[in-house]
Amino acid sequence: MYNKITIDILNLFKQVIDSNRLLVDTNQLADYAHDETEDFHFFPEAVALPESPDEIAALIKICHTHRIPVTPRGAGTGLSGGSLAVHGGLMIGMERMNQILEIDEQNLQATVEPGVITEVLMQAVAEKGLLYPVDPASKGSCFIGGNISYGSGGPRVVKYGTIREYILNLQVVLPNGEIIWTGANTLKYASGYNLTQLFIGAEGTLGIICKAVVKLIPKPAENLLLFASFRSNELACEAVSAIFRKGIVPSALEFMERKGVAWVIEHEHLTFNLMPEAEAFLLIEVDGNQLDELMRVCEQINDTLEHYHCLDVLFAESASQKESLWHLRRIMGVSVKSKAIYKEEDTVVPRAALPTLIRGIKDIGQRYGFESVCYGHAGDGNLHVNILKGEMSADDWNNRLKEGIRELFELTIKLGGTISGEHGIGLVQREYMPLKYTPLHLELMQGIKKVFDPHQILNPGKIF
Amino acid sequence: MYNKITIDILNLFKQVIDSNRLLVDTNQLADYAHDETEDFHFFPEAVALPESPDEIAALIKICHTHRIPVTPRGAGTGLSGGSLAVHGGLMIGMERMNQILEIDEQNLQATVEPGVITEVLMQAVAEKGLLYPVDPASKGSCFIGGNISYGSGGPRVVKYGTIREYILNLQVVLPNGEIIWTGANTLKYASGYNLTQLFIGAEGTLGIICKAVVKLIPKPAENLLLFASFRSNELACEAVSAIFRKGIVPSALEFMERKGVAWVIEHEHLTFNLMPEAEAFLLIEVDGNQLDELMRVCEQINDTLEHYHCLDVLFAESASQKESLWHLRRIMGVSVKSKAIYKEEDTVVPRAALPTLIRGIKDIGQRYGFESVCYGHAGDGNLHVNILKGEMSADDWNNRLKEGIRELFELTIKLGGTISGEHGIGLVQREYMPLKYTPLHLELMQGIKKVFDPHQILNPGKIF
Repeated sequence: MYNKITIDILNLFKQVIDSNRLLVDTNQLADYAHDETEDFHFFPEAVALPESPDEIAALIKICHTHRIPVTPRGAGTGLSGGSLAVHGGLMIGMERMNQILEIDEQNLQATVEPGVITEVLMQAVAEKGLLYPVDPASKGSCFIGGNISYGSGGPRVVKYGTIREYILNLQVVLPNGEIIWTGANTLKYASGYNLTQLFIGAEGTLGIICKAVVKLIPKPAENLLLFASFRSNELACEAVSAIFRKGIVPSALEFMERKGVAWVIEHEHLTFNLMPEAEAFLLIEVDGNQLDELMRVCEQINDTLEHYHCLDVLFAESASQKESLWHLRRIMGVSVKSKAIYKEEDTVVPRAALPTLIRGIKDIGQRYGFESVCYGHAGDGNLHVNILKGEMSADDWNNRLKEGIRELFELTIKLGGTISGEHGIGLVQREYMPLKYTPLHLELMQGIKKVFDPHQILNPGKIF
Repeated sequence: MYNKITIDILNLFKQVIDSNRLLVDTNQLADYAHDETEDFHFFPEAVALPESPDEIAALIKICHTHRIPVTPRGAGTGLSGGSLAVHGGLMIGMERMNQILEIDEQNLQATVEPGVITEVLMQAVAEKGLLYPVDPASKGSCFIGGNISYGSGGPRVVKYGTIREYILNLQVVLPNGEIIWTGANTLKYASGYNLTQLFIGAEGTLGIICKAVVKLIPKPAENLLLFASFRSNELACEAVSAIFRKGIVPSALEFMERKGVAWVIEHEHLTFNLMPEAEAFLLIEVDGNQLDELMRVCEQINDTLEHYHCLDVLFAESASQKESLWHLRRIMGVSVKSKAIYKEEDTVVPRAALPTLIRGIKDIGQRYGFESVCYGHAGDGNLHVNILKGEMSADDWNNRLKEGIRELFELTIKLGGTISGEHGIGLVQREYMPLKYTPLHLELMQGIKKVFDPHQILNPGKIF
């Protein structure tokens, strides 16, 4: 179905990109053979590091003509294997296209290249009093292009909405090498099928994003952060819904199981004491322009938490304490990864179904013999389930566990949810797609794929 | 290409829907032959008024088999001719599917049928302290299904985001009669191509929406409303951007030209005095939970407006005065329509380009011999341009004017905008699509259409 990259094809690549930005050495390729998903390794045959949309277009045209698979890659921080070159071929790394091209303070928009690190964009606009609110846990290293391609979320979605609300327009290279802008630089858009929205979450299978126009908003002046301890996962999760029912919309509402927090404390050598009877924790942030108003909201939150037998509420008193608490949450994935062999599932359900989901996860774990560490964006009903290998046999881990994951997703779907909230399908979830979608639904998606990429050269082996 | 509805086909319809909900009488059909777009009339051959997704599916299957065009129709309040049966065939009216099926206060979601009037939904959730914020000017009569299909907006998008942020999941009947749910009832979704987003703004060309799950948010307790008068359109539009640059996000920021306001006063027999030198007006709303905080924001707005030589700021002092000012804005389209033969264009540009856009509109008008009344959602850069026939000859109105509209859209696009912000393409804007899109871009859209509707039975003659 696909061709290999021959010397002749390499020479064609070298006609359109500097040879020092075309990597073929195995040692160099090794850096591009994995992402943050489990321990997968797939080597591309070559890696190109373009510096312009025209270079991408020229490379893609060659691959299109010669049926070479193309895998676009951001920072390689993905958790679904989406940037793995499972069919070999050419990888196109976006790391050189890392410029913030414009911050338009008149229109509250920025135009960026896909290789801009999310936090770099956030800091650049913050200096102008503006907020780009979509901050995945990996914001310090992930690229905005990857965030767009995987519909990445993070803690602030609960108040500010998903990345879909912040991407106004995309410049993309299509699989045949043509370059289009998908939309317009406007807040409203009702001009035919919305290709901007179609590209968000398409995992690089329809085209390669080479510029994005993002919406910015005024940055709230103040925020307050609470860290609350609970006797059980269920009580913590029930408190989450109760906060919203009080009419409060926190700017973040994160859930963490004790084991996750304890492992972070160990991994990071922190001196942070957890109450002995605390089994679960919520990290709750509110933001706005008036501190006295936020204090009032925190009191309301505190009153609400008491109904769920909250053991203790720690009120972050300084910027550094806030930073420490956020670090605790953000480093959790890395800490779990360093401690145990694991698989991470990105479940999402309607918010009030969280207690049922978490009970179900533990029940499935008991039946299949795995422990799990759960944490995530409880305000969105988005729970990251880290399944630990522990004492499981290799056979159970590699084979029987799939049945357990299948049960987990069946539960998620039964509760009104889906199989990924913000990590994408990529390589690792694709076998579970038929749980969520009817054959016709999958055919429609594949039909769209064929419209854009009839030879299926772009990121093959993903989603479907 | 299409077949007519014969007696045999009517009999097939009658096997799946009560004959009293299948209209064929010309007098009855007349009610379904027009929408709010100019003075178009296209008669469907029959109108079905289904009461369930299964009835829709059964009707569509017959039409699919026999190549009968199908035009879905909401309340007929559209402004782009999208619900006109330009190829005859069967119209499917959604007026009987008007139930709010569930308001889920635990998850802040509602499940509705497509024929629910937008304001009915808003009031029902408001009684529970919740807000569904997407309120087009026609909210008192338009249907939520039409809002979704046309990406309808309204004044609150500026703070709360577009309808895309509030539609979580759709049940749709596909052109072959199969029924699917497009997504999940979750705030985050990264599970393959997002068909929910694809259906939003697809103008009923890909499938017929038969249920929607919408996101709700806590309703702010307070709001304040200002009505500001300016010497010129440009000064009013410049003030719009300045408000955002102060870090303020109003919950509505509407622009109105003097002529539009004057016509409303005449049409509605209002006793409302406009300052003689006032040429343009802004209606500015802020909302939140703390009245003192909102008062402070209004003072900031007031200070900002002074820099743009604002003549006067009226502060609405009662609920009834607020309602009167909002009525002034909402009834403007109807008032203009009652007064003059007109065409309405739904321009949208980045917000700071509004002064340039409005100068350009007047300049084009001078060259083509038309006057215009402009008003709209200035906070979104979304300006409705009502072109008045006035003394234009029929030939100029029907033919030469097209060139003027073309120039208007070229300007819009040059400023980073597009040809419709919230009304859709429908019948009347489709000839201007090539101004915005390359041939390849249009081919991609048409390719998507063919994946869903290979026989092109659904709402033919629209968008493309």
